[in-house]
Order: sequence, then structure tokens, then C-alpha cells
Amino acid sequence: MSLLTVGTMAFDTVETRYGRAERIIGGACTYNAWAASYFTEDTRIVSIIGEDFPEEELQLLHERGGDTQGVKKIPGGKSFFWEGKYHSDMIGRDTLTTDLNVLADFDPVLPESYRDSAFIMLGNLTPDIQLKVLNQIKGKPALSVLDTMDFWINSARDTLMEVISKVDVLSINDEEARLLTGEHALVTAAARILEMGPSYLIIKKGEHGAFLFSLNDIFFVPGLPLAEVKDPTGAGDTFAGGFIGYLTATEDTSFNNLKRAVVHGSAMASFVVEDFGLNRLRHLNTRLINQRVMRFKDLVSFNL
Amino acid sequence: MSLLTVGTMAFDTVETRYGRAERIIGGACTYNAWAASYFTEDTRIVSIIGEDFPEEELQLLHERGGDTQGVKKIPGGKSFFWEGKYHSDMIGRDTLTTDLNVLADFDPVLPESYRDSAFIMLGNLTPDIQLKVLNQIKGKPALSVLDTMDFWINSARDTLMEVISKVDVLSINDEEARLLTGEHALVTAAARILEMGPSYLIIKKGEHGAFLFSLNDIFFVPGLPLAEVKDPTGAGDTFAGGFIGYLTATEDTSFNNLKRAVVHGSAMASFVVEDFGLNRLRHLNTRLINQRVMRFKDLVSFNL
Repeated sequence: MSLLTVGTMAFDTVETRYGRAERIIGGACTYNAWAASYFTEDTRIVSIIGEDFPEEELQLLHERGGDTQGVKKIPGGKSFFWEGKYHSDMIGRDTLTTDLNVLADFDPVLPESYRDSAFIMLGNLTPDIQLKVLNQIKGKPALSVLDTMDFWINSARDTLMEVISKVDVLSINDEEARLLTGEHALVTAAARILEMGPSYLIIKKGEHGAFLFSLNDIFFVPGLPLAEVKDPTGAGDTFAGGFIGYLTATEDTSFNNLKRAVVHGSAMASFVVEDFGLNRLRHLNTRLINQRVMRFKDLVSFNL
Repeated sequence: MSLLTVGTMAFDTVETRYGRAERIIGGACTYNAWAASYFTEDTRIVSIIGEDFPEEELQLLHERGGDTQGVKKIPGGKSFFWEGKYHSDMIGRDTLTTDLNVLADFDPVLPESYRDSAFIMLGNLTPDIQLKVLNQIKGKPALSVLDTMDFWINSARDTLMEVISKVDVLSINDEEARLLTGEHALVTAAARILEMGPSYLIIKKGEHGAFLFSLNDIFFVPGLPLAEVKDPTGAGDTFAGGFIGYLTATEDTSFNNLKRAVVHGSAMASFVVEDFGLNRLRHLNTRLINQRVMRFKDLVSFNL
């Protein structure tokens, strides 16, 4: 089936204790589309870039089944730029620069051919933009997934609540789940969020793993213990890309298949952090991904 | 088979956002023995108490198969006392009082009947005392487990390293593993620790779960997401008690059985935090424990 993904395509400057990477390709949508590309070959990309964004990056995505006609290039414009430095624990980070540039005027109009997309990934953007994208979809998609962040929970709660009420899956981290509900215990926070509209909730706990909740079920996938995490940037977006890419490919939105999708998303995220930026994501294959998925299975398997 | 457990029996005053409990029964050995008592009926307890420690608490353990002749009562002495207040996240805590009292003169001499114990649980104490206990064991036990803490890693590293070199399993938390090795990544820290002597390593991550490492295998059990954690005190000791109690009962020290033991330990820990002190541990049964173990299995199960 088809996947629509909307979000940023950007330049990142990243410093971690493994080094510094200047103005490498980043952005939620980029990570998302790359991760999804290992599962599905019909990914429709919606984003906005400046004239500085390399044409060959769009070409690479195109070769992997990405439709880039929904990527708007602004003549003379500059792409979104983020600069950050990670603490030595590779978890905490300081944002040093955020230049919205062309993102400030992002007002996505979906190409007609995108509007029948079956799976929808709403990357972290203003809730207004997410709502506009959702409203351009014809009919009811098979599954829509929403990512957001603390900033929108604090500054645009009303619109965000409207978007949340319209999607099938909300994907946030543990602190965001607490902020959204005022509940500390994640099971209690999850119950509140599932009352807001979504049928499923993913709560990401970074290196510690991720929960998948439905009204009646809970599933957990741990973080894979890695010897070297070189750059955590994009891990959440890569997770989401693997998750929705797997669902798009398997065309099955049962809870059992969502569990498998969460594991595949976690496997993709465990790859991306092994090197800076998109490096690791550019050279994977199905065999490597399946091997990694098996490591997740082995990690938690026991017989009674 | 037989289990020997050594550690504190104490009074605790605990304050959490669910309330305050004054001078309730606590101590690593108490939690450990209670948890183990649901699996084995031959637990030999080594501890030291003051005249203030209630005789009926020893009687309760005795009724559950605990041999308390190794619990030394000091006439006129006062039992170890700890007072702490948990932060609202129920993870961080401030220690307000630590009165060693009779623990300051703890110099355990094992009753002759204890010296053939098959399973040995060395609760968190000075490495000197742990070594003395270990040296009184006849022959090679089936499995010995060592608990320790950051304080001993910092203040008694040499003796601690000697104890570590003599045990089969070291059980510590993630920060202690990092402190002990200087390695941030847990897989790397684990590799270093397994070079120090133990065949197995447990790294506890509190609410996030626990890893079990051997030279060639990794296993992970998540923390069960709970709606209410009323009092985290004793969770680690209860985990250890369930772990070694299960092993003592099953008489199987293979990695596959250690995995099951880690799950049973986690199940016991998930109970104890649901109420203050020992309350929840006092009224369990095999059916409840097995149900809880199944929740751990269901939480991570998926089919490919």
C-alpha cells in the first residue's frame, strides 16, 4: 500500500563525544522516509527545502521508491537548520541553533496523487500544519500516526488535542506523555491518552525501549544494548519510519502486527544511532534488518 | 536445596507521596528471605539485630522455613535504622538518617549447620563481612550472588574486587556498573565485569528493568508498568530474593534457568513496591506469583 510522510528535511550540525558532523543531511521526514524505504516502495514525501538542499538527496530517495513531488523547493530559500551538542551520556542534549528558514512558511498542499494514501505519518511540526495535511486526505486512511513534542503540548495544546483526536496512533516519549496528562505513571497516562481519541499509543523511553498501548493490551520492546552510540539524532523518526513502513508493507493493523512493527521500528532506530546522521541508514538490507529483529526477540525470550 | 542469605534486618522510616510509615520492619535480608520463602523452605538467615527487633518477626520467617539461629540478637542493642524520603518521581530519594547501631559490630560466625549451604546470597554489607561469610562456606556452593553499592565501590574497592572475584553472580545497578568499570555503555561495562571473575552479571535499571549477562548471552526483563508504586524500598533485595529463591528451588544454574529466575525476581519486586515495607510480600501465594510472571511474558511476546 501507500505511505504519506510529512515533516522536515534539513541540515544538522551535531557534536557528540565521538566527533562533530557539520551540516549533514537531517530532518524528521528524511529519517522517516529512509527507514520506511526498506519496507515499502510507495512513499509519498511532503516537505519544504531551500535551494541549498542537494538535489542528489532527493534523487537517492526517489531511487528507493520515494515520491518527491510533494517536496517544495523555495528558490533562494535556505533549508531548516538545527545544531546540537549531546552530553557525554548521549541522552541529554543542548540545542545551540534552530533556524526555521523556509520551514517558517510551510503550508503543505498535497499533490492530487497523494490524497488517497493509506498510511499517514505526521512528523513533528506545528499541530496546525499536521491538521491541514490530515484534512487533505480523501476518505479514512488505514492508519495515521502522529508525532509531536513538549513544545506543542505547552504552546498549542488546543489544536494539538484536535489532531490527537483524529489519528489512530500517537507516538511520544515518556516525559511528553506525563506533560500531556499530568499523570506520572505511564499506564495511567496511557489510559488518559487513549480517551483522547487514538486507538493506540506508543510511549518511547529512549535507550530504555518503547511501550505500545491499546485499550486492552500492553507490549514492550527494550532498547538494544549497544556498545557504541555515536549519534542519537533521528532515532525517534527512524523508529517511526520503520514502524509505519512495516505496517504499510504488511497491510495489517491488528495489535499483533503493530507489535511486530514496533520491533522493526526499534531495529531501525538501533542501526541509525551507530553512526552520524543517515550514514548507517544508507547501507542496510533486509538480511541485516531481520538479523537485528532476531536480536530483539532473543533478548527477551524465555520459556517457563 | 539450601539457601544462605546474609544482610541487614532493620527498622525503616519511609516517606513517599503516598504517605509515611514509621519504624516499619525493613533490611535487605528481611526482604530477601521473605521473597525467597515463596520458593524454598530451607533458608538460613545470617544477620544482627538489637533487643528492639520484634521476636514475632523472626517467628514469621521461621514459619515460612527460615532458620534464624544465625540471627544474632545483641542484649541492650538497637537495630539498624534507616530513614528516607522519596522524590515525587518515586525513583530519587534522600537518606535522612542512617543509624548503624548493632550493625557496626557485625562479625558473622555461621552456625555449623549453615556451612554446607548450596546457594549463597551476600546482601549489601561491607566487602570485609561478605568475604568472611564466603570463607566460612565449606566446599564450592552451587551458586553465590553478591550485592553491593556505590559506597563500597568508592571506599573499599580492593576488598570488593576480591569478593567479586569469588562469586558466581554480581548484582548491581546501572550506575554502579558504570562506576565500577568507568564504562558508560552497559554491554562494555558488563564485558569488563565478567573479566573480574563472575560468570554472570545482573544490571538492574530500576523501573526500566534488568539485564542478565553471561560471556555469550544477554537477557533483558522489563519493569512491569504499574499504576501505583507506593514504596520502592526493598525492591532490589526482593528481586534478589526471588531470583535466588527460584534457583534454590529448581536446582538448575543454566543460563536458561537464570533467565527464569530473573523474571521471578522481577515479579516479586513488582509486588513489593505496591505497598509500604513488607506488607505486600506477607500475603502472596504461588498462584498470584505465577500470574504475575505471565504478565512479564505477555508484555514482551511477539511472533514473527
